[in-house]
Amino acid sequence: MNEFDKHKPVLTRAIEALHARTFYAAFPEHPAPAVYGETADADGQAWFKSISGKNFEELLQGKANQWLGDEESPYLQQPLGIKYPAYTSAELIAKANQAFGSWRKTGVSDRAGILLESLDRIKARFFQVAYATMHTTGQGYMMAFQASGPHAADRALEAIAAGYEEITRIPNSAIWDKPMGKFNIRLNKEWRAVPKGVSLVVGCSTFPTWNSVTGIYASLITGNPVIVKPHPGAILPIAIYVAEIQKVLKENNLDPCICQLAVDSFAKMITKELAEHPDVKLIDYTGSSAFGSWLEALPGKIVFTEKTGVNSVILDSVEDVDKVAANLAFSVNLYSGQMCTAPQNFYVPAQGIGSPAGPISFDQFATKMVEQVNSLVDNPKAGPFVLGAVQNVKTNERVREAETLPGKVWLKSRTFENPMFKNARVATPVIVEIDASKKDVYSKELFGPIVLLIKTRDTNHSVSLAKEMAQQHGAISCGAYTTNPAVREHIADEMSMASTPVSFNLTGGIYMNQNAAFSDFHVTGGNPAGNASFTNSDYVTRRFNWVGHREPVKA
Amino acid sequence: MNEFDKHKPVLTRAIEALHARTFYAAFPEHPAPAVYGETADADGQAWFKSISGKNFEELLQGKANQWLGDEESPYLQQPLGIKYPAYTSAELIAKANQAFGSWRKTGVSDRAGILLESLDRIKARFFQVAYATMHTTGQGYMMAFQASGPHAADRALEAIAAGYEEITRIPNSAIWDKPMGKFNIRLNKEWRAVPKGVSLVVGCSTFPTWNSVTGIYASLITGNPVIVKPHPGAILPIAIYVAEIQKVLKENNLDPCICQLAVDSFAKMITKELAEHPDVKLIDYTGSSAFGSWLEALPGKIVFTEKTGVNSVILDSVEDVDKVAANLAFSVNLYSGQMCTAPQNFYVPAQGIGSPAGPISFDQFATKMVEQVNSLVDNPKAGPFVLGAVQNVKTNERVREAETLPGKVWLKSRTFENPMFKNARVATPVIVEIDASKKDVYSKELFGPIVLLIKTRDTNHSVSLAKEMAQQHGAISCGAYTTNPAVREHIADEMSMASTPVSFNLTGGIYMNQNAAFSDFHVTGGNPAGNASFTNSDYVTRRFNWVGHREPVKA
Repeated sequence: MNEFDKHKPVLTRAIEALHARTFYAAFPEHPAPAVYGETADADGQAWFKSISGKNFEELLQGKANQWLGDEESPYLQQPLGIKYPAYTSAELIAKANQAFGSWRKTGVSDRAGILLESLDRIKARFFQVAYATMHTTGQGYMMAFQASGPHAADRALEAIAAGYEEITRIPNSAIWDKPMGKFNIRLNKEWRAVPKGVSLVVGCSTFPTWNSVTGIYASLITGNPVIVKPHPGAILPIAIYVAEIQKVLKENNLDPCICQLAVDSFAKMITKELAEHPDVKLIDYTGSSAFGSWLEALPGKIVFTEKTGVNSVILDSVEDVDKVAANLAFSVNLYSGQMCTAPQNFYVPAQGIGSPAGPISFDQFATKMVEQVNSLVDNPKAGPFVLGAVQNVKTNERVREAETLPGKVWLKSRTFENPMFKNARVATPVIVEIDASKKDVYSKELFGPIVLLIKTRDTNHSVSLAKEMAQQHGAISCGAYTTNPAVREHIADEMSMASTPVSFNLTGGIYMNQNAAFSDFHVTGGNPAGNASFTNSDYVTRRFNWVGHREPVKA
Repeated sequence: MNEFDKHKPVLTRAIEALHARTFYAAFPEHPAPAVYGETADADGQAWFKSISGKNFEELLQGKANQWLGDEESPYLQQPLGIKYPAYTSAELIAKANQAFGSWRKTGVSDRAGILLESLDRIKARFFQVAYATMHTTGQGYMMAFQASGPHAADRALEAIAAGYEEITRIPNSAIWDKPMGKFNIRLNKEWRAVPKGVSLVVGCSTFPTWNSVTGIYASLITGNPVIVKPHPGAILPIAIYVAEIQKVLKENNLDPCICQLAVDSFAKMITKELAEHPDVKLIDYTGSSAFGSWLEALPGKIVFTEKTGVNSVILDSVEDVDKVAANLAFSVNLYSGQMCTAPQNFYVPAQGIGSPAGPISFDQFATKMVEQVNSLVDNPKAGPFVLGAVQNVKTNERVREAETLPGKVWLKSRTFENPMFKNARVATPVIVEIDASKKDVYSKELFGPIVLLIKTRDTNHSVSLAKEMAQQHGAISCGAYTTNPAVREHIADEMSMASTPVSFNLTGGIYMNQNAAFSDFHVTGGNPAGNASFTNSDYVTRRFNWVGHREPVKA
């Protein structure tokens, strides 16, 4: 196989980037407008239209007994009508076991070459992935392209680099030579990175590729066969990834079932069945805390979870309150608050926020948030594209219920017209003031565009609540605004102890929701929001065991 | 603090050794007879006599409410009479929490310096540790010195090196610079290795330092306060380690309670209470599978276990059967089979073992094993010192019961006279032939000097049983003898899939029981014998979380 030689330079740079944690130093060409071809966008859209109502025939994993597909576009509020081949759990596991032998015996370099080649193939389909993502998740076009395309591929590359590095960090063999005085004991030793076994990757409905490819590629690079179980509501984006992986496997004379797609329906989900199967040794999961915690407790499995959390914004003091409110309003509007990194609990001291012009009162800040949210929503050139559509109708219900929370409703949720999709399911942010004493209200994730302005005694109180929420209920992100270095360090240290990364004083075109591959660890694994981290070393090392054999050197 | 500068060269070489996996290349001076001083042995013995019947007053962890101590010498079969300060779980946890703050804020280099200095101090007490180990575990003098002294210190050094390397692998800070076309987004990013919290290290009665120091030093280097809970039957060896750690902490103006000794009594064990405490985030454990599995299932904790297993020897073909039997007889006699790496199940094909002189029948091999075991036991200059004494009287019962197993008893267990300790509790190996069909007999650990010769159809059958035992019931070691390269690879591959390291064709002065720091991963974490490995990278990385903060670079 020569895939490895072809892709080695990229792999080398990716490993460098992993340690430098500044991706663009290693990949300076990366953020430049990629050359996808002038018709790439139109072609992608046309492909999406052509597949709608059809069978997805690209998979190479064998004849199916039935074809299933429940996907529905949040923009059109009608079924996509795409059907995928479906298999029983037993069939999927049997094929994964069958494929395991050849994959684990494929060296890590060859595995890396094949996986990197698959990313190249997927790159050529980013626009297809983008339309597939829009019409399953409700993401805006731009986010759908970025998050499911290049940013997901970056995370996949990161996992490949991390796995490759960890496996090649220990020598394949060495001579152990122990001087014993009159003679030496000499042993030939060898170390094998033994993959754990069948890997199950369970996707979510909002980020069907970004949240799944890390687990898929981390398990594959370390030699495990993977069963990808997408959310029944968001299959197509990851189906494209799996199809391309299978094609490259086949071209390299390997079993395409090394990476299978396991489609199910809302009527009969197979996730539990797969997860409980004794041959499934690795599970990656993004989704609800209840199911995630159930998976974590399964005995005899290594489970990597991203669950729910309560993300905070701590407002202490600002340089320019309008810029701050604008930045936070964008974070709240972005994909209608359906990001695991979106802020929910805004802690504002009762006596207000410090600023060069004197304190900004709680009410003044609330007013500014309302204005900035409205201003973005009402901008026809930005609003509909930033907010996108709402994936799940339950989110709309939750947003409506938020207006009944015990506190002043500063802004009601409303609808708006998407110029391209008249029938889109939408909801703009609701902003409610909550007193800090009402902990039961704000100590849970209210998924969607729901903002709680929590009135605290002072910044210490804010920090202590944000920390408590993260430690008790999980948190993936935290925003903080302060111009005081001592307060800054207090926040940094306290939130560290709750294993929550803090974005300080963000204004302009960068938002607390964003987590960049090769730089930001996504989820820390240190609070209830999840037990794993994209991509620290144990995210890959826990997918294999080091086994060392030894034998005396022949005299 | 300048401990780091003093010890940096050793740390650098230790990190090199960790990757080369050939310790003695990095530490060529190491196996040379160390210069402990001419009177070191006599001084150590005198110290042990002087402490017997007294209070152990060296700990710096505060006034105790009571003094406890149940230790008993297996050589003397009488209590040591040493008492240790004892505290309630609540007191221990409170002090650990109190000490946490200063330790986590001590930089990793300073932590490394302090821990390396403690190893230097302990080195000066290796002979005290040796006598303490003999008279708690029953180990022979030589093993007690090696395993509890230099070999344990090597494992501690390995853990320090691994932790130091992992924490320094990610930069403290970097500028993330993303070209956006007309401008760049520039963020100052910083990453903190945030320790998990209070660490509990639960010791065992047979290897009170070797099995505990890895967890202690791994947790300490990564910034966690440690509570060391030794087995009530083997406290003194690890008490010396803890005392020296505390002294170095105090000299460096740090709280000695960063590492506490938690002594309990057989009448009232506090392990469960400590393990269940919500502030305990990390648990290291060596001991029974039942309790280890209970610990592993505790929610919200990271648990590292070494439990029980069934170690196999696969006999296919040999060059010199006498050398093979002699080597295996030594493995069986060593510390009377009370090592977690001692072989138990010997798989011998019914048609015999291949050799240059033709097949060696099952009975011929059994006879040779009996002869070689007897020959070592009956050698007054070697036997008593290799076998040592039996730690727990239950082991003697188990050995006697083994004679009633359903099969031919090739060798009965007996006693022998230890020239130095007339009252020593001893037991020589029992060897029983078991048919491969009697799986219930040999599918559990029979701790102690118990050898089962299992008659199989052929080598494939042997390998399949050894693999099954390891996968279903755990295994830490495996011995295999074959002169056939294809069979060798078959065994290597199959046992890899059961995450069991294989020692091939050992003869002479190296035994399958031995696992060397910086080279042999001890326990793989891939079968029921334990979920952790000394010392792979996740053995240290799982003791902290990476938390990254970020803030725009000021223009």
